Amino acid sequence: MRATVMYGAGDVRVVDVADPQLKEPTDAVVRVLRSAICGTDLLHYGAMPPDEQGMRIGHEFIGIVEETGADVAGLEAGDLVVAPFMYADGTCAFCAEELHTSCPRGGLWGFDGVDGAQGEAVRVPWAQATLVKLPVAADSSLLPSLLTLADVFSTGYHAAVTGGVGPRTTVTVIGDGAVGLSAVLAARRLGAEEITLMGRHKARTALGREFGATAVVAERGEEGIERLRELTGGTGTHVVLECVGSPSALETAFGVTRDGGTVSRVGVPQYVEGPVGFDVFNRNVTLTGGVAPTRAYIEKLLPDVLEGRVEPGRVFDRTIGLEETPQGYRAMAERTALKVLVKP
Amino acid sequence: MRATVMYGAGDVRVVDVADPQLKEPTDAVVRVLRSAICGTDLLHYGAMPPDEQGMRIGHEFIGIVEETGADVAGLEAGDLVVAPFMYADGTCAFCAEELHTSCPRGGLWGFDGVDGAQGEAVRVPWAQATLVKLPVAADSSLLPSLLTLADVFSTGYHAAVTGGVGPRTTVTVIGDGAVGLSAVLAARRLGAEEITLMGRHKARTALGREFGATAVVAERGEEGIERLRELTGGTGTHVVLECVGSPSALETAFGVTRDGGTVSRVGVPQYVEGPVGFDVFNRNVTLTGGVAPTRAYIEKLLPDVLEGRVEPGRVFDRTIGLEETPQGYRAMAERTALKVLVKP
Repeated sequence: MRATVMYGAGDVRVVDVADPQLKEPTDAVVRVLRSAICGTDLLHYGAMPPDEQGMRIGHEFIGIVEETGADVAGLEAGDLVVAPFMYADGTCAFCAEELHTSCPRGGLWGFDGVDGAQGEAVRVPWAQATLVKLPVAADSSLLPSLLTLADVFSTGYHAAVTGGVGPRTTVTVIGDGAVGLSAVLAARRLGAEEITLMGRHKARTALGREFGATAVVAERGEEGIERLRELTGGTGTHVVLECVGSPSALETAFGVTRDGGTVSRVGVPQYVEGPVGFDVFNRNVTLTGGVAPTRAYIEKLLPDVLEGRVEPGRVFDRTIGLEETPQGYRAMAERTALKVLVKP
Repeated sequence: MRATVMYGAGDVRVVDVADPQLKEPTDAVVRVLRSAICGTDLLHYGAMPPDEQGMRIGHEFIGIVEETGADVAGLEAGDLVVAPFMYADGTCAFCAEELHTSCPRGGLWGFDGVDGAQGEAVRVPWAQATLVKLPVAADSSLLPSLLTLADVFSTGYHAAVTGGVGPRTTVTVIGDGAVGLSAVLAARRLGAEEITLMGRHKARTALGREFGATAVVAERGEEGIERLRELTGGTGTHVVLECVGSPSALETAFGVTRDGGTVSRVGVPQYVEGPVGFDVFNRNVTLTGGVAPTRAYIEKLLPDVLEGRVEPGRVFDRTIGLEETPQGYRAMAERTALKVLVKP
């Protein structure tokens, strides 16, 4: 089959790879109907050292079950399914607590001999626990929104939930990428009435306003902190959803958090240490969030998507075929695309 | 009057200073009945650059009201009162949220022209909001326990509350100082049944066991992390109360926290940055806590102390007169005393 392989920074190719086959009785093979390119794929695209072997990539997909192992119950060939961006066994203590990302037998698509999602098909470990059946047809117009449950919308929701967003909290969202916009949508869905989006790409912040942002701050760094504090009577907001992961985004996050408030981060940290010393301590600011156990959110958010109460799929502003993933990466890296949908 | 003044690292003297007088109509003057030496005083004692002027010091006291300003209601001469370690106006938005430590008009004893507590008397700003009347006599045997409400017991309680300690959480407490032992007591009071105390001073950890610790880990650093993980089936505990503030204590705290769990810190950070990068993110570990708004806890914890359900005053293992505070500092610095009570 054909699949996307990354060979180093800026070097993505679509090549022939072995067809996926059942290895374990708990596996399924799923034909990919839609996949996507993610901001975290771009981190590799910007920094991966050259590697002749290459790395299978992509971790978001909706597909149709082709074959299931002997121990997979509740799924059969022909089922339309969505996968969270990490697979998990569904039986360990962490899965029971809905922290599937800490499952000792779980993992990320594209690593440890597991297929990446930007290809024609995927072998799915722990298929019964990992996959969620979707009650829609293969040509449903809801597919883009349903695909965001795999990662970006669920990730934005994780930020908002762990940050404690509710009707009485004021919120800042840092970052106008697909996760930041998803976090705006999630905060609104959880009842927040004051949501300030910090971002400087006009088309993106415009979508953020449609998703529920009530103000936009385009300035960055110290200037951005000052501007946001002005907007909030000098104090900052109760909750800050940090959806970038850069050192400066984290610094800004602490700078715009109200004393006693919370920074909830879902941007993958591009830092080893963070500024959590005396100032943050003295202001009783909490740092929470982390990698989103999206498996836990798919079923919770599914009714909202199926019934049209939210349309997170609007973050996709370009659709390409599988052979075009190299162009898709380029478009996202150059920020001419917000988020790219791949139709193999 | 006589008061303790610190002139530099290791240089504490008891000297004559001006008698406190009402400056604002919201002030009171309180004669000190009991004060104490605190671990945070020791930070200055270890590091203060020489200063001929000196710095008034001490921030824990119980006393008797001598005089009140015209705008102070509800207090009169003769009242026995305890003060939290920071005064606050009681009227701002932060005070209303019980985050008195962020009160813009609040402050710490000994700074900005306000008296320190290790003296004969103190001028109390915002006296009506700051002081809490105690329904006991001046010779009550409860005074030591009541004095811990000013700082250490309330601080340990803050750690446990912000960390989310409850009957279903396993807990690690890092540090066997007065705050760490108070945190053990607080965690037990909040229903925790598994409390591991990390500390290596036998007399202190023995008191920790009496306060509710169910296990003690004397090892430190990597070895301590390994030992604690062994005790918890490899995972660490749900909540870790970090009561030291050193970089290594914070590192240990993250190392012994279960995935999805919380580090709640009340040790004053002796670091500018902390290790909150990918590993902490990937394990969904939260960092919370901060300087304790003890004013909020005094009334909540008072019944427990008055009715003898807790005896946090057992952390005091030496009592001295005011003229002996230099010896008191030395004893705490050399760890021959756990916590020193001062009887002016």
